[in-house]
Amino acid sequence: MILLKDGLIVPMAGRRAVKGSVLIDGNRIKEVGEVKEKVDAEIDCRHKIIMPGLIDTHIHLAQALLRGCADDIPLVRWLNERVWPLQSTYDPELGSLSAELCIAEMLLSGTTTFLESGLHTKYGIDGIARVVERSGMRGYISKMLMDSPYYANHRMYEGMVEDKDEAMKEALSLFERWNGKGGIRVALAARTHCTPELYREISEMAETLDTIATLHFCEIKEDVSFLRKEYGMSPVEFLEHCGLNNERVTLAHCVWLGDAEGLKANVAHCPASNFKLGSGIAPVKEMLDKGVNVTLGCDGAPCNNTYDLFRDMWLASIAQKARLLDPQVLDAHNALTMATINGAKALRIDSGSIAPGKLADVITIDLKPHLMPVRDPASTIVYSAKGSDVCDVIVDGKVIVENRELKTIDVSKLMDRVEEKGLLPDRLAHFL
Amino acid sequence: MILLKDGLIVPMAGRRAVKGSVLIDGNRIKEVGEVKEKVDAEIDCRHKIIMPGLIDTHIHLAQALLRGCADDIPLVRWLNERVWPLQSTYDPELGSLSAELCIAEMLLSGTTTFLESGLHTKYGIDGIARVVERSGMRGYISKMLMDSPYYANHRMYEGMVEDKDEAMKEALSLFERWNGKGGIRVALAARTHCTPELYREISEMAETLDTIATLHFCEIKEDVSFLRKEYGMSPVEFLEHCGLNNERVTLAHCVWLGDAEGLKANVAHCPASNFKLGSGIAPVKEMLDKGVNVTLGCDGAPCNNTYDLFRDMWLASIAQKARLLDPQVLDAHNALTMATINGAKALRIDSGSIAPGKLADVITIDLKPHLMPVRDPASTIVYSAKGSDVCDVIVDGKVIVENRELKTIDVSKLMDRVEEKGLLPDRLAHFL
Repeated sequence: MILLKDGLIVPMAGRRAVKGSVLIDGNRIKEVGEVKEKVDAEIDCRHKIIMPGLIDTHIHLAQALLRGCADDIPLVRWLNERVWPLQSTYDPELGSLSAELCIAEMLLSGTTTFLESGLHTKYGIDGIARVVERSGMRGYISKMLMDSPYYANHRMYEGMVEDKDEAMKEALSLFERWNGKGGIRVALAARTHCTPELYREISEMAETLDTIATLHFCEIKEDVSFLRKEYGMSPVEFLEHCGLNNERVTLAHCVWLGDAEGLKANVAHCPASNFKLGSGIAPVKEMLDKGVNVTLGCDGAPCNNTYDLFRDMWLASIAQKARLLDPQVLDAHNALTMATINGAKALRIDSGSIAPGKLADVITIDLKPHLMPVRDPASTIVYSAKGSDVCDVIVDGKVIVENRELKTIDVSKLMDRVEEKGLLPDRLAHFL
Repeated sequence: MILLKDGLIVPMAGRRAVKGSVLIDGNRIKEVGEVKEKVDAEIDCRHKIIMPGLIDTHIHLAQALLRGCADDIPLVRWLNERVWPLQSTYDPELGSLSAELCIAEMLLSGTTTFLESGLHTKYGIDGIARVVERSGMRGYISKMLMDSPYYANHRMYEGMVEDKDEAMKEALSLFERWNGKGGIRVALAARTHCTPELYREISEMAETLDTIATLHFCEIKEDVSFLRKEYGMSPVEFLEHCGLNNERVTLAHCVWLGDAEGLKANVAHCPASNFKLGSGIAPVKEMLDKGVNVTLGCDGAPCNNTYDLFRDMWLASIAQKARLLDPQVLDAHNALTMATINGAKALRIDSGSIAPGKLADVITIDLKPHLMPVRDPASTIVYSAKGSDVCDVIVDGKVIVENRELKTIDVSKLMDRVEEKGLLPDRLAHFL
């Protein structure tokens, strides 16, 4: 048993912040508040906030190594001239290295669960799965399904496109090998603008396997005109047409979705990525008003350029205020709910709040000058805190980060390897 | 002499990043690059970026204690119902405490120079000046000049309004007492919508004293319609009318300035504050295109809610990309220039770049997983780094922060005092 002792607890799920302790037994939370039980391991939380681990519903593990290699260019060129050609040169060693860098960053900044957006075979998916397993993190991985070289109205770099049936077979085999191993679950993942046939198969397979599915959707304006032109449908109609409009599905971006009426799929809002790529500001306030389950994603290092969900929580909140010229919309509590409760719901994981019986995915934040004084701790977390304020991270009842030290990855060795291998100089020279 | 040894130097001022060392002699930079001289004090920079200290051209020292006390409400209510009434209850002890909290945060996040936006007498300006002097930071303080209770079309809380002549006398006396003491300079500062007479006096006095002036300007839409209605002038015409359209003047906000043609005053762009207060997104790209000297400001803890200029650099860049749906505008280098070179120009201080002869205001950034790999270090700094990545801070040749430890302020004692005094519970109960 582990005791997080005497902190300021932000429980979420409709309950108010309280001073007290959190008792963890095995991989579940046992007690919250005044805890009298004797335990072996204690973490002193007297100057800390105790809160649920953050849930990132849209990340690319294999993009961490591409940080800073595709700044300040539009999405289609970003994919076509930089990210896809560079990733097409990956081998399993680079794939694993990128995943480890990404996971180290996420854990050190308080993310305890992720939904990967789809991995290509050449990244070495088994190697990446082993990295996730060793890290102690909770996450969905998947084989990227991509059966069309067209993206919106553009012909794209074809190196990542594969035969639909072969790819589905591989996705299934990945599920059988890895789903349920350690913190790993296996999802189904597709790129934007696959064929409706593939989307339908994905939808049915997610149901059969009792897992979730994810795809990029309506990220840029042209995505919507493409659906209109190609299928004569609105985005929500197209989702219905492909069997994707249901709670097992998480749609990344949805900047240009338009009217969200009738949308049952979850949305992974990625504000930092959408801002930096000039994609726009998603109408999150309106989606929430229509009852859509909006969650948060950091996307990738070449677009965000970090995997720090604290920064995306903050931006998610203030972006709506600036867009609508109304400071009253999407407050800190709403943003925090998106990154915890809503994320847990989309990913069908029993976490996202601090209450007896919940999975013990818990983090603490150190109170430093820039976080003081604390009035409403939700405000402190969303409007002032950064990933680097995270002090301790517990996933599935295990202490993975203690006092800012990551226990499952040798960060110094990782950094050396990133410096040695990660700059991909020959490959970059070719493309940049 | 101090040597910052073997880092990745981002010199700014048109020069490319280089690997090498920075030699500091007294309060000036002596050499940059390969340094062979023997020195007494060395800072190992092998895994660090060495860059100019950041310059914040719009902050409120007395608002740090009000962090989180005015979230999610519009500017006029924010001022009228929260910030001004709460600040009107300050005494010199609270004024100094707030300034110390603000300065600790700025120094720990790499800001080496600030322009305060105007202090009211009851905050105890001499006490605040002593806090600045002891901290080793470089900064402009000033007596707030405010001779009208009207703000845009609203009648405001009157507790802060003072007689013009009395206030000007006090501003002059402050200048005589403190200008040039330690890192302190004294500026002239006015609120938005003072009388043109006061603005004109300020302009003349800034010239006479060879100092700078600052005011809030065109922060919300109503500011512009007020100028039109009251004076029949556009914002730039009004500045001309009041003698404020010159290089000694820094205008905070300018969200609704409109056409910047002919603007000679500097702009302190405050994106985080403008977003969170729902004021809007300033047309910074267009201002830069017209040759306006745009700088960056964090504003205050009740609106930002931090004093971390790294966050505002990032937001300044991505906000323009999202506003114009164009990822190519305002890149990392532009944002970094705003927070260094442009800031130094506005504040008439010989810093903002790393070159022989410049003032030794230099910071280092630790390369951690979320900053790796480094391709263009400007991208690393603006798109990935946070204030908490700052490792060492040198101001005027003195090491003020070393390996994240602030040497001039006892942070632990400060935090205890903020916890004890800073929550202002009675005062809050009255207003919230």
